[in-house]
Amino acid sequence: MEKSITLDELLNLIEEKKVKDIREIFETIPTIDIAEVCDQIDDIKKLVFIFKTVKSEYTAELFTDLSSEKKEELIKTMSDAELVNLLDDQFTDDIVDFIEDLPANMVNRILRNVDKTKRNDINRLLNYKENTAGSIMTTEYLDLKQNMTVNESIERIRKIGREKETVYTLFVRDERRHLVGTLGLDILVFAKGNEIISDIMERDFVTVNVNTDQEEVAGLFKRYDLHAIAVTNDDECLTGIITIDDAVDVIEQEATEDISKMALVSPMEDSYLKTSVFKMSIKSAPWLVCLMILGVFTSLILSSAQNALAALPVLTVFIPTLMDTGGNASGQSITLIVRGLAVGELKTKDFLKILWKEIRVGFLAGLFVSVIGFAWFLIEMYIGIVSYPDAEILATATGLEIFTMRATIAGIVSITMLVAVILARVIGCCFTLFIKLIHLDPALISSPFVTTIIDICSLLIYFGICVYIFNLVAI
Amino acid sequence: MEKSITLDELLNLIEEKKVKDIREIFETIPTIDIAEVCDQIDDIKKLVFIFKTVKSEYTAELFTDLSSEKKEELIKTMSDAELVNLLDDQFTDDIVDFIEDLPANMVNRILRNVDKTKRNDINRLLNYKENTAGSIMTTEYLDLKQNMTVNESIERIRKIGREKETVYTLFVRDERRHLVGTLGLDILVFAKGNEIISDIMERDFVTVNVNTDQEEVAGLFKRYDLHAIAVTNDDECLTGIITIDDAVDVIEQEATEDISKMALVSPMEDSYLKTSVFKMSIKSAPWLVCLMILGVFTSLILSSAQNALAALPVLTVFIPTLMDTGGNASGQSITLIVRGLAVGELKTKDFLKILWKEIRVGFLAGLFVSVIGFAWFLIEMYIGIVSYPDAEILATATGLEIFTMRATIAGIVSITMLVAVILARVIGCCFTLFIKLIHLDPALISSPFVTTIIDICSLLIYFGICVYIFNLVAI
Repeated sequence: MEKSITLDELLNLIEEKKVKDIREIFETIPTIDIAEVCDQIDDIKKLVFIFKTVKSEYTAELFTDLSSEKKEELIKTMSDAELVNLLDDQFTDDIVDFIEDLPANMVNRILRNVDKTKRNDINRLLNYKENTAGSIMTTEYLDLKQNMTVNESIERIRKIGREKETVYTLFVRDERRHLVGTLGLDILVFAKGNEIISDIMERDFVTVNVNTDQEEVAGLFKRYDLHAIAVTNDDECLTGIITIDDAVDVIEQEATEDISKMALVSPMEDSYLKTSVFKMSIKSAPWLVCLMILGVFTSLILSSAQNALAALPVLTVFIPTLMDTGGNASGQSITLIVRGLAVGELKTKDFLKILWKEIRVGFLAGLFVSVIGFAWFLIEMYIGIVSYPDAEILATATGLEIFTMRATIAGIVSITMLVAVILARVIGCCFTLFIKLIHLDPALISSPFVTTIIDICSLLIYFGICVYIFNLVAI
Repeated sequence: MEKSITLDELLNLIEEKKVKDIREIFETIPTIDIAEVCDQIDDIKKLVFIFKTVKSEYTAELFTDLSSEKKEELIKTMSDAELVNLLDDQFTDDIVDFIEDLPANMVNRILRNVDKTKRNDINRLLNYKENTAGSIMTTEYLDLKQNMTVNESIERIRKIGREKETVYTLFVRDERRHLVGTLGLDILVFAKGNEIISDIMERDFVTVNVNTDQEEVAGLFKRYDLHAIAVTNDDECLTGIITIDDAVDVIEQEATEDISKMALVSPMEDSYLKTSVFKMSIKSAPWLVCLMILGVFTSLILSSAQNALAALPVLTVFIPTLMDTGGNASGQSITLIVRGLAVGELKTKDFLKILWKEIRVGFLAGLFVSVIGFAWFLIEMYIGIVSYPDAEILATATGLEIFTMRATIAGIVSITMLVAVILARVIGCCFTLFIKLIHLDPALISSPFVTTIIDICSLLIYFGICVYIFNLVAI
């Protein structure tokens, strides 16, 4: 624990061919930490030396933890014999994971160098659609027959368990390969040696179909506190399993995707540093363009109000603040609801409950904001942050005292703000739930559209109140 | 599997006291699914009937899965004897979880009704700071001594394992209660009966201190694919463990918190439906006020530009679009970086790498947006969506043809947009990494401040270019 190794230390050991020391590193430092150092080795031959030196149980793990570029380089450098050795110790789901990004000729070379059963498994896994249970499952599970005794089962686990991805959850099948039960390894350890599996196995287990969405799979892991879940095909035969570590990756990946979408970035397959500049631009720019084009509606309103704005430029000063507040309020509402839907806490059938809550929160938060806003706008005008050369025109036209006029302007802005915040939360929740109801992705669609709608509403209300109060059109 | 029960069915069974059927439900349906139905039972006596009927191993789980309101009601209704029974089967971390929200007199009643060891454990766990390893750990772990044999260990597991939160990871201690190794149950099953624990245990295990932040703990689970992690106190003695299911909850909770913060909502302890309207307003409104007050800077600029705007109102028309584009671009950049920092993929030391990437992405995305923007603004003006009564004044003042003037306006807006997008990404990344560097929370702080800075910059650039080109001040 707490031991680590630097790149220089590792390179020195390789340089001096200190085989024993290198082997010891793998005994004492977690492989993923070593893999991070190995990722920085430029000379691929030095990396191959490590693979030749260290026990295959460690190299298998090391390979899985390397970056995809290093994996590709390694495979190019290795002989077929070395490749066979390496692939033998890899789980099929890990092989599938990394060959998905390889060029076709390398995929073929890998498929040539694994045994036939594994090749068939890999080909099958490669065919499942992305983000389904089938695409993340592994075929290395441990199955038992229901009429086995506990002792026979433990015997079987001892014999073939080491090659399996997990032995903590065991899967019990009948003669037709149908899954009839699951069994935790702990239950097996607690049981007497002559007990029959079908008597101690769990019959109310959870399974998923190969086509189930991975987000749903992750949800089941959380809900039922599972360590592994069985994946069945359309004939209800057991075809693979998914383990908790894969589910954890999915949970994190889905959260990252939701966060990206809400910030108007299309989800990226790779991490930040690994995504190219071009790809990152392509994932970001179209959303900016889309929103810029939606901006036509606010332009239209402002354009029609040009006469009013020219007559009373002080109105312009508050437009950005007004629009930002509405946009922020709708963002708050949409985010909470989108997240609630994603983690399964909210359902579209809760619509009325959510709407009623949003109306009240909108009113309360809006009132808070607009009361403080009223005072703040008065102060802005009083200390001259906001000056208004048109004050005298306005005063003459309306016959108001200077303070009354300031209060009127502050009042118009803050009432608009109150209405905008309420509308923002109400429209935000209705739109989000509607998008969910028609099976589109609320994280992706809600924010830009709702912001635009709120912008339009705020401006219309703002100018509406202005026209009504100052009868601007007449000026 | 796939079996379920409705509220009415369950109430009927209770009404007719069908003890056998009720017991069978718990054998065939996952407890969490039953708990959801039980949450809807209004008559608490009916719920107590279930607790009296069903085996204690199921009621323990059922209680954990109930909502906090039902737990409170149940405890109020139960006799001390019933409470003792219930609490006996609960893990300390689950008890701590629910008594944190209870009124003091009920906490005392619970503490009176658990045995002394558990009471001490609970009191200790209650004292750890929120969101630390200590606050989410459990004290029910299975420990082995290093000189035990495999057979002795299995014997111990069979004897006391059922009361422990997990037996999949076993913790090996020396005489002074120091953790010296960990051992997967699978390794124990694979080993020969007379092997000594210290020969087969894992020595390069990961531990955390009781004060380690829970987010860091969750990160270790992901990094090392752990099932359980040991928690040690400042004297390096083993004091508790955290299991993967708790880590999964933390991962999801932290993602939800980050999402909330980025949408300007202070994190809430409870779920959407359980949070009161008042609390939700309090978590949202201050951010809206804060941003409204920061809006003073844009007001200041617009206020100083009132003369220019009055002379040429068409300039106002594009302000919202400009500001939105800058704000959206900075949001995209900040979100990706904040998320990268949260999942540990980005470090502040990568600053130059990130900055260089942001500059290029900003340029490419900005170019894309501004080229399309240029065309779009021309179209807007051509088809009359944006009309400009001041066109003639402008044409006279500048001596430009009508098309040239349109192109000039579109050009000014789109060049401002290009600069704003680049600035947005650059300032977004610098600010976010700076906030992280000084150990504040970038998810919470970055977005509002950067948006305000970008707003100011965009407006200054916009008016700057306008003044330069049209020499507006002279008009």
